[in-house]
Amino acid sequence: MEFLPERRGEMKLDPWFVTGLVEGEGSFCVSFNLRRKLKVGIETRPSFSVTLSSKDLEVIKALRDFFGCGGIRYSKGDRTYKFEVRSIPDIVKKVNPHFHKYPLKGSKEKDFRLFAKISKMIHMNLHLSPKYLREIIELSYEMNPSGRRKYKKEELLRVLGEMKV
Amino acid sequence: MEFLPERRGEMKLDPWFVTGLVEGEGSFCVSFNLRRKLKVGIETRPSFSVTLSSKDLEVIKALRDFFGCGGIRYSKGDRTYKFEVRSIPDIVKKVNPHFHKYPLKGSKEKDFRLFAKISKMIHMNLHLSPKYLREIIELSYEMNPSGRRKYKKEELLRVLGEMKV
Repeated sequence: MEFLPERRGEMKLDPWFVTGLVEGEGSFCVSFNLRRKLKVGIETRPSFSVTLSSKDLEVIKALRDFFGCGGIRYSKGDRTYKFEVRSIPDIVKKVNPHFHKYPLKGSKEKDFRLFAKISKMIHMNLHLSPKYLREIIELSYEMNPSGRRKYKKEELLRVLGEMKV
Repeated sequence: MEFLPERRGEMKLDPWFVTGLVEGEGSFCVSFNLRRKLKVGIETRPSFSVTLSSKDLEVIKALRDFFGCGGIRYSKGDRTYKFEVRSIPDIVKKVNPHFHKYPLKGSKEKDFRLFAKISKMIHMNLHLSPKYLREIIELSYEMNPSGRRKYKKEELLRVLGEMKV
């Protein structure tokens, strides 16, 4: 008698299906927070996420299985589930390689290219140096031009200029 | 000297990418209009569509190339492009076979199954018979429960009941 591989009836996603879904429902984002306790005064937070209606929790779970990282959050307000990866090593080693191999097609490809560049810089800890953080901020504000931002770019650059590092 | 195949620098889409994109941004819909001149009094219009922001016109064009049918319309209000297939033969012979071969994963799969059944019935002209049109209306109103509808189901069934066919 043989042992069969474990099956939990889970949904298996084709890599191109994942890219197609992300083309529509995915988001690459780099946000910033003012943190006086940090040497550079600004915290940098990249995130990759996919948001779907609550009916599609199974697809969201399958995305987490596919990437082998990230978490799932429910938003009561708009009844959606969000799959989100915030860990820098996971982004650099698990998320970005997928989109290099199975590239996005539309305007989101530009967002991804900036995101990949920025997350690589953060992975090298360059966001802790004011010089490179300035570059990261500039690159980030070229992404998702339609998205809402907590701070204006000029505000962040001014804070950065005031810090004595 | 050989003739090379025509190249217009067009975007080529993987079939699973198309399914992934449709999972998020696609729509299967059957709408109805009251038409006194028709014997059954009701016109049945199925439509498959994908709507993307105006930045993604190239992806929309690639979808049209992929399915080899349908049209593209611009919506000034929300600055989107919509790829849409309304022709019954195109839906039955070009759209539906794709989703049978590369199935949707989430809640849209249920919509598609109903859509495929309804469009097949229409292709057989069953929507011109009150008995089957009643069934088509019932099936259609199980789709896209969140979508807005021009008529309530009861309204259509009442009209259908009043017609002398």
